[in-house]
Amino acid sequence: MADIPANAPEHCPGTGSGEAGKSSACQGCPNQSLCASGVSAGPDPAIEEIKEKMSAVKHKILVLSGKGGVGKSTFTAHLAYGLAEDEGKQIALLDVDICGPSIPKIMGLEGEQVHQSGSGWSPVYVEDNLAVMSVGFLLGSPDDAVIWRGPKKNGMIKQFLRDVDWGNVDYLIVDTPPGTSDEHLSLVQYLSASNIDGAVIITTPQEVSLQDVRKEVNFCRKVKLPIIGVVENMSGFICPKCKNESKIFPPTTGGAEKMCNDLNIPLLGKVPIDMNIGKSCDMGKSFFTEIPDSPSTMEYKKIIQKIQDFCAETH
Amino acid sequence: MADIPANAPEHCPGTGSGEAGKSSACQGCPNQSLCASGVSAGPDPAIEEIKEKMSAVKHKILVLSGKGGVGKSTFTAHLAYGLAEDEGKQIALLDVDICGPSIPKIMGLEGEQVHQSGSGWSPVYVEDNLAVMSVGFLLGSPDDAVIWRGPKKNGMIKQFLRDVDWGNVDYLIVDTPPGTSDEHLSLVQYLSASNIDGAVIITTPQEVSLQDVRKEVNFCRKVKLPIIGVVENMSGFICPKCKNESKIFPPTTGGAEKMCNDLNIPLLGKVPIDMNIGKSCDMGKSFFTEIPDSPSTMEYKKIIQKIQDFCAETH
Repeated sequence: MADIPANAPEHCPGTGSGEAGKSSACQGCPNQSLCASGVSAGPDPAIEEIKEKMSAVKHKILVLSGKGGVGKSTFTAHLAYGLAEDEGKQIALLDVDICGPSIPKIMGLEGEQVHQSGSGWSPVYVEDNLAVMSVGFLLGSPDDAVIWRGPKKNGMIKQFLRDVDWGNVDYLIVDTPPGTSDEHLSLVQYLSASNIDGAVIITTPQEVSLQDVRKEVNFCRKVKLPIIGVVENMSGFICPKCKNESKIFPPTTGGAEKMCNDLNIPLLGKVPIDMNIGKSCDMGKSFFTEIPDSPSTMEYKKIIQKIQDFCAETH
Repeated sequence: MADIPANAPEHCPGTGSGEAGKSSACQGCPNQSLCASGVSAGPDPAIEEIKEKMSAVKHKILVLSGKGGVGKSTFTAHLAYGLAEDEGKQIALLDVDICGPSIPKIMGLEGEQVHQSGSGWSPVYVEDNLAVMSVGFLLGSPDDAVIWRGPKKNGMIKQFLRDVDWGNVDYLIVDTPPGTSDEHLSLVQYLSASNIDGAVIITTPQEVSLQDVRKEVNFCRKVKLPIIGVVENMSGFICPKCKNESKIFPPTTGGAEKMCNDLNIPLLGKVPIDMNIGKSCDMGKSFFTEIPDSPSTMEYKKIIQKIQDFCAETH
C-alpha cells in the first residue's frame, strides 16, 4: 500500500506502477494528470522518514473501535498509565482522533501546548516516562471544531508520525477515531515499513456495536494488521445500593465472547461499568489511583498484562 | 460554499473565483491545475440537481453528535418512527454513516437490497409512509468494512441526495457519523441550495461528550446550519430491582442543561437509560411499541413534538 496517495480511488494501481494515471480506476482521480506524467513515481518519501523515526520505538499498538462512545480513549489512556507503572519503560501516546480528541481532557492536559524544537514537535509529559501528543494541543480552545476533509487529516497524521520528538520509546499507543476511513488507512500506510505489533479493538456488548467490530476485524485482515484482541467495555452495571447487576447494553447475540469465538480472535477481558470511571475521566485523573481495588481496575490490569505478553512474543 | 470541491484545502477561494488555482491556499491542492485552467469554473451541477430533487421534500433535519455511541442512530430511527405515526405524513430516513451504518439493524432491515428503477434508487419501506436508505443496503454482508477515503464518501453522499427516488416527502431525516468532517461538509455543501430546517445534536451527560458537542455547535455556526436543539441521552439509570437512580455517565460539569444555557441553544429533553432500548434496537424493533409507557418513550415523544413545532415555524 506504500505508493497509494491519500486521496486515491479504491483501485488505484499505485503511483509507482506503469499503469499510474492510465488505468480505468484513474478516471476522475485528482492525481491522474500528475501520475500520468510520471513525476510522482515512487513511494511517498515520508514512509522511509517515518521508518527511520520509528526505529527508536520498540512496540506500536493501535487502539481501534467500530462504533464511537465505547470507551476507546478511556482504554487508551489507561493502557498508557498501566504500562508507565514500570518506571523503566518509556511510553508514548498519540491521539489521532482529529475531530474529537478526548485524550487531553481524560489525562488532565487541557490547555497544554506543543512546543517546536530543533528536532521536531515536543510532546506533553504526564509523567517522566509518559509522553502525549494530540491534535487537541494544537487548538486555540477545546471547543474549536476541526473541520477537515480527508487529505488534510492525512497530512496531520504524517506530521504526527514523522515530526514528533518522542526519543527512545518502549510502547507507542495510537488512539484512533471510530470506523475504517482516512485516519486508519493513513496510519497503516505510513507505518507500512515500521512493523506495527497489532491492534486492540474496543467494543460494548450489544449487537449494534459488535456488528461494527466485525467490520473492523475485516479491515485489519484486509490491511494485514495483527489483532491483539478485543476488550468488552461497559459489560454490566452493579447497582451501588442493592448490588443487583443490570446488563445496560444487553449482549443479545452472546456479546464479545461469542463473537471472538466465531471469528477466532482473543477476548482480552470484560470491564464492568463503574460511574467512577466517567468521573475520573472528566477530572483528568487515572481511575487506577482513584479506585485502585475496583473490579474495573483489576480487569484492566489483567488486560494490560496480556497486551504486554503479546508484544513480548512478537519481538 | 457551493463552489468548493470535496477535496479542497481549508481556504479554497472557490472554483468559480478569479483566484481559483492561483491563491496561496491552492498550493498543493490536487485540483490546482484544473482550477487554474478555468475549465471547472462554476459550481458543481449536482447542487442544482439536488435542489430540484429536494423541492419535493418539505422539511430536512440532520441528526449530529460530537462523540459516537451516544445513541444517535437510535434517536434518528425513533424520530422517524414517531413522525410516521401520523399516517398522513411521508417520512424518509437517510443513513450516511458510511463506515458504521447501524440503521438497517436497528430498523429490522438487514439483508434488504436497494433496487434501481428508471427514476433512481428505490429506498426500502418499513411502513407505507416510512422509507429508508442506507449504505448498509449496498453491502454484500453486514460485516463488510467500507474502507473509503473522503472523496469516495463524498461521491456516495451526492448520489444519495440526488438519485434516491423518495417521491413527495414531509420529513427527510439524515443520520450522520460522529464528528465534523467529510460527510458533514458534503451534506451542507450539496444541500446549500435546498434549505435545511436545522440540526438536532445528541449527547450523553459527561463532560468528555459535551466537549465534542461544543465543537459540533461551532461547526453549525460556521456553516450557518440552524440548531433545533440538544437531546441528552443516557441521562441516568434506575435500578430495576431497588429503583435507585445511578448517574452512570455523571454530569460533572452540569450536563447538557448547563451547556445549553451557556451556549444559548434549546435543550429538547433528557432521556433516561433503559435496557429495553438496547434490546429493541438489537431486535430491529421500535421501543415505542415494545415499552410504550416507559419514561424513555414519553420523553422521546415530547422531544419529537418540539422538533415538529420547530419545523412548522420555519416554513
